[in-house]
Amino acid sequence: MNIVIDAMGGDNAPEEIIKGCVEAAKHIDAEITLVGNEEVIKEYLKKFAYTGSNITIHNASEVITNDDTPTKAIKSKKDSSMVVGLNIIKEGKGDVFISAGNTGALMAGALFLVDRIKGVDRPALAPVLPSYHGPVLLVDGGSNANCKPENLLQFAIMGSIYMKTTLGIENPRVGLVNIGTEEMKGNELTKQTFTLLQQPGLNFIGNIEGRDIPMGLVDVAVCDGFVGNIILKVMEGMGETVSKLLKDEINRSLMSKFGGMLLIPAFRKFKKKLDYTEYGGALYLGIERAVIKCHGSSNAKAIMNAVKQAEAFVRNKTVEKIRENLVEFGGDDIDSGK
Amino acid sequence: MNIVIDAMGGDNAPEEIIKGCVEAAKHIDAEITLVGNEEVIKEYLKKFAYTGSNITIHNASEVITNDDTPTKAIKSKKDSSMVVGLNIIKEGKGDVFISAGNTGALMAGALFLVDRIKGVDRPALAPVLPSYHGPVLLVDGGSNANCKPENLLQFAIMGSIYMKTTLGIENPRVGLVNIGTEEMKGNELTKQTFTLLQQPGLNFIGNIEGRDIPMGLVDVAVCDGFVGNIILKVMEGMGETVSKLLKDEINRSLMSKFGGMLLIPAFRKFKKKLDYTEYGGALYLGIERAVIKCHGSSNAKAIMNAVKQAEAFVRNKTVEKIRENLVEFGGDDIDSGK
Repeated sequence: MNIVIDAMGGDNAPEEIIKGCVEAAKHIDAEITLVGNEEVIKEYLKKFAYTGSNITIHNASEVITNDDTPTKAIKSKKDSSMVVGLNIIKEGKGDVFISAGNTGALMAGALFLVDRIKGVDRPALAPVLPSYHGPVLLVDGGSNANCKPENLLQFAIMGSIYMKTTLGIENPRVGLVNIGTEEMKGNELTKQTFTLLQQPGLNFIGNIEGRDIPMGLVDVAVCDGFVGNIILKVMEGMGETVSKLLKDEINRSLMSKFGGMLLIPAFRKFKKKLDYTEYGGALYLGIERAVIKCHGSSNAKAIMNAVKQAEAFVRNKTVEKIRENLVEFGGDDIDSGK
Repeated sequence: MNIVIDAMGGDNAPEEIIKGCVEAAKHIDAEITLVGNEEVIKEYLKKFAYTGSNITIHNASEVITNDDTPTKAIKSKKDSSMVVGLNIIKEGKGDVFISAGNTGALMAGALFLVDRIKGVDRPALAPVLPSYHGPVLLVDGGSNANCKPENLLQFAIMGSIYMKTTLGIENPRVGLVNIGTEEMKGNELTKQTFTLLQQPGLNFIGNIEGRDIPMGLVDVAVCDGFVGNIILKVMEGMGETVSKLLKDEINRSLMSKFGGMLLIPAFRKFKKKLDYTEYGGALYLGIERAVIKCHGSSNAKAIMNAVKQAEAFVRNKTVEKIRENLVEFGGDDIDSGK
């Protein structure tokens, strides 16, 4: 197995990306290919005292930044770490591509260079979210602002297969994100999707409300990418707000500062439970190879977790299982809607 | 001023409703009319040792419950506390109606019995949310699942007037909830709304992302009721999840339990800052009288805050100012979309 990584993508690239790979290399039974400026990567491998044999470097002279226009960048920066990396997996010389770089470019590149699984109308970004009762897969987490009911059905199928094969959840509970639990609640999209999701092979538990996602009452939360992106960002923002408010209050008196010190181990575990990076990155489900998008601000630990997630994704043949299981709905519109 | 309250609506009615009113009566310069079963209300007023003169009782023999179908209940339960209360404000014998009962019935009742402000196409529930930087008004918080750009413009106008008149924010910042900050991001609704919101008299700061709401980067967050309800519920659920996770970790060791004890005052202030009920209930903006929906689980404190909020709403003539300022767009579709 060969895990291909964009060494140059993300706010903390290349240092944290390479550091995370050096750490991951010790724990996994796979090759890692770092794509990017060879000289720079070599220096960092030396800095992090890498002496193993499972990391190789593939040179790429350009970098796609967050200021680049996605489709244009994919077409013009042919020797960028992202395009080169995607081409490696396209040609079958790699099994999975991980990047913390420009999200739009990664999605466009995956679509145009690697292609969709036959029958998948719209691939979807699927982040794994922390919740009170373990990980929840949110799909679509932001790739398709406008969706049809058939797209949401495919999201549910792909999401279920991922949670089953990679996270080992036997019969993943699928919930449709809505504004009430009754069948006829919501807008046209949710009403039509509700009917579609009631089919054998899918453990559809019905409509769920926003609160059920952080509470973890489902394994797969299905919605369009507009709603999904807002859920993702509200959860991130709430997590940050709560931490800041708590810190402010603890720093207000000597007694509470002392109490806070006694709670450092508890706070650390608490933080770990709310940490998005614990479960790796967001999968781009529906692409012919595994593609994982890490948060732009990913540090070494996030990258290490994404590499482990990638290994499990490939080892458990998630792409193959999606290909086999997907009910084909046809449809050829690959406009991402954004 | 006469503040009319549904004594029988909500999970903790009538006890907590009446308790909250007895408390509020000490702090406000207005009459309070409790609508509901006269005998029961009298008993509770005695229990809470009420001896003042500004609370009166208006008898109503029926109660609309959460199991009732909204429109049907409004039509058939003519002597319910909700219908009787709405009729009191309709007839001008009261200035504002507060209920913690069936949300759908309250909205339907306000529309059919009290009517919309002329020119308002869709009234909208507008909850005041806590954030890192003070209160944020979310409008629409769940009443209209399907909206047109013109509806969102009216939400922005009504929300701005509320934040200015009642909360004293001089030039309320209005943000359009979207999946990116660039002008052309989002779906058809947000793209068209973006153009509409750029008009004099409105302090439109552009698109905002989900995270900006808990961070408090705007005063008024505008979206359709589908997205709004999900934001509201995700924030509630995240708040609860965080509290539960923190409690779990603190209870895991003796040392952290001791640390937690030292932090009780800090936790209390922290909780107060995240407490939805601190700012009262959700306004039903666009109705000819002030109507406030409190959370179904409201306790006495929540009711007391809603009464104070109602007093400010009426004193500052928010309805009148909405009526004067609203740009008329016509439109007569009062279907709530749910």
